[in-house]
Amino acid sequence: MTDHPHAADTQRQLQTCISVRDIGSFFVGGEMLTLSGMPHRDRVSTNQGAVHPVDQNGEIIAGQMYVQYIRLERPTGRWPLLLWHGGGMSGVNWETTPDGRPGWQMFFLRSGLDVYVSDAVERGRASWAPYPEVYAEAPYFRTAREAWEETFRFGPAGSWHPDEAARRSHEGVRFPVGRMETFMHQFVPRWATNNARTQHAYDALIASLDTSIILTHSQGGNFGLTAALNAPERVKAVISLEPSGAPSPDDHDAALLRDVPHLFLWGDYLDQHSFWVDSVPNVRHWHDALAAAGTDVEWIDLPARGITGNSHALMADDNSDAIAAIVLEWLRKHSLAA
Amino acid sequence: MTDHPHAADTQRQLQTCISVRDIGSFFVGGEMLTLSGMPHRDRVSTNQGAVHPVDQNGEIIAGQMYVQYIRLERPTGRWPLLLWHGGGMSGVNWETTPDGRPGWQMFFLRSGLDVYVSDAVERGRASWAPYPEVYAEAPYFRTAREAWEETFRFGPAGSWHPDEAARRSHEGVRFPVGRMETFMHQFVPRWATNNARTQHAYDALIASLDTSIILTHSQGGNFGLTAALNAPERVKAVISLEPSGAPSPDDHDAALLRDVPHLFLWGDYLDQHSFWVDSVPNVRHWHDALAAAGTDVEWIDLPARGITGNSHALMADDNSDAIAAIVLEWLRKHSLAA
Repeated sequence: MTDHPHAADTQRQLQTCISVRDIGSFFVGGEMLTLSGMPHRDRVSTNQGAVHPVDQNGEIIAGQMYVQYIRLERPTGRWPLLLWHGGGMSGVNWETTPDGRPGWQMFFLRSGLDVYVSDAVERGRASWAPYPEVYAEAPYFRTAREAWEETFRFGPAGSWHPDEAARRSHEGVRFPVGRMETFMHQFVPRWATNNARTQHAYDALIASLDTSIILTHSQGGNFGLTAALNAPERVKAVISLEPSGAPSPDDHDAALLRDVPHLFLWGDYLDQHSFWVDSVPNVRHWHDALAAAGTDVEWIDLPARGITGNSHALMADDNSDAIAAIVLEWLRKHSLAA
Repeated sequence: MTDHPHAADTQRQLQTCISVRDIGSFFVGGEMLTLSGMPHRDRVSTNQGAVHPVDQNGEIIAGQMYVQYIRLERPTGRWPLLLWHGGGMSGVNWETTPDGRPGWQMFFLRSGLDVYVSDAVERGRASWAPYPEVYAEAPYFRTAREAWEETFRFGPAGSWHPDEAARRSHEGVRFPVGRMETFMHQFVPRWATNNARTQHAYDALIASLDTSIILTHSQGGNFGLTAALNAPERVKAVISLEPSGAPSPDDHDAALLRDVPHLFLWGDYLDQHSFWVDSVPNVRHWHDALAAAGTDVEWIDLPARGITGNSHALMADDNSDAIAAIVLEWLRKHSLAA
């Protein structure tokens, strides 16, 4: 982080303790549904326990989203920072990095912001609902190959191999490729059918807070950009790390967001992976619409700044603190962090 | 809390901030598996995104368990407290109560202990694996009726009704029955086929720490009691809130645990619910075996102490702080908390 004016105090803060007022969690969204026609089953719930009958019919809850908050005794930023994960992931993305360093949750707490980490509908602690009874189809389980070669851009097409010694990665990649299995522990199943449910829950989260700053990753990007559109008066800023999508200017009025600064931040190798070649232009269109509407919007291409080798897992790469520091600097510039 | 000598300082601590050294997470267990024969699918991953093909075959990870830790700047207890949830639940159980008060995670942090909250295999942030490819069968989704009438003992058989006004609860129950839906948000699917995987992960957690104190709820009970058996030298104490099962003295030698104090703690209405009528005797047998082996073991029947109305959700009942204070007092008596 020699290229950053706050390098010294960023290093210092990584050592310091924080005074915490409260740690807790809540859910937003969710509704009671009734299952019927499900078979009765007999279950043994614990080793050597008795067999007991289970009626699978009746009311269940579905569609809720989980939010864990950590509130500081004396936050120096006025608005909380919401960290929204990407597809096939949970809020764990923002915790300890795969190589064992403090993650962005801790970074921004140490920067003086209250931090809210959520698990979106169907992910992690938010739980998921039965299919095909509630969700229309089966989920996707992320494979190592898809993560390595497509979504996260650790290596080029054909470079994944189950045997670590036979695996290849991009020259200079900043992801700690030796910790691939540790990173895979964070994967959770995803569906492709729940965008409306998820947006509804994110909108409910924004509505439940006075005002907040949204920071998203990947699939979370479109949800964050849309949440800001749906409640611009409640959102102080939107920071999108490699969003995989964005609202279309054909359907949405970017002028609603004239007073909400936006930051887009991108890593390396984007032109070598078809998923990203297909995805970036949609986001660029929305960026351009925001800019045309007079929004304060910045598009950071890290390689163009001389910061090369970042994968899609920016918050897990070995320079994750340096990337977080760029975001912090942007927040300071907009008087959103002290 | 008038019945407790530490009532005053417990009240005080609930207001105080805590100085935190680190918040983070890790996984234990987990192995790479290979899926084959799964159909190819086409997916749109974000609104208005491109269609892209998904190969569901290849390496995935399964069997990991999630652990979030919060470490204090100056813990006054020497050993961390591990909080293990029950069946169909995640670590969220230990966070904010359904009626919005700080949960046991925060209670024990404020009591000076480092706290580790886990999500067991197949639950919450630990993720789950496909069935029937990896898990043999489909999961169970907890119904409101099962929770209300059977497992959590909020009301007698036949008392659940989807319409809140028509719902009945036990006379004097301490669970905030008006927050039933909020509590249901914490439910996650469970399987009945993963005891071995889950025990393996809990044992790995114990092995990954020098020494720790285990505090379990419900289905977590048998895992905790067994984990202590599997590594008695690493476990300072086992606290079991209404365990649904226990090792059998016919198969296991309680004398291995002679130096590991055990606390069992029970709420009300146990004799009115067949699941509990069937489950308690197995636990009592293990308690008796521990006692016969000379283990320091205590069996607290809250109603016998005049504390009536506790449901199975002791950490969510409206006197959850008072129950936590009983546990804290027991820890202090055993020099495990200051």
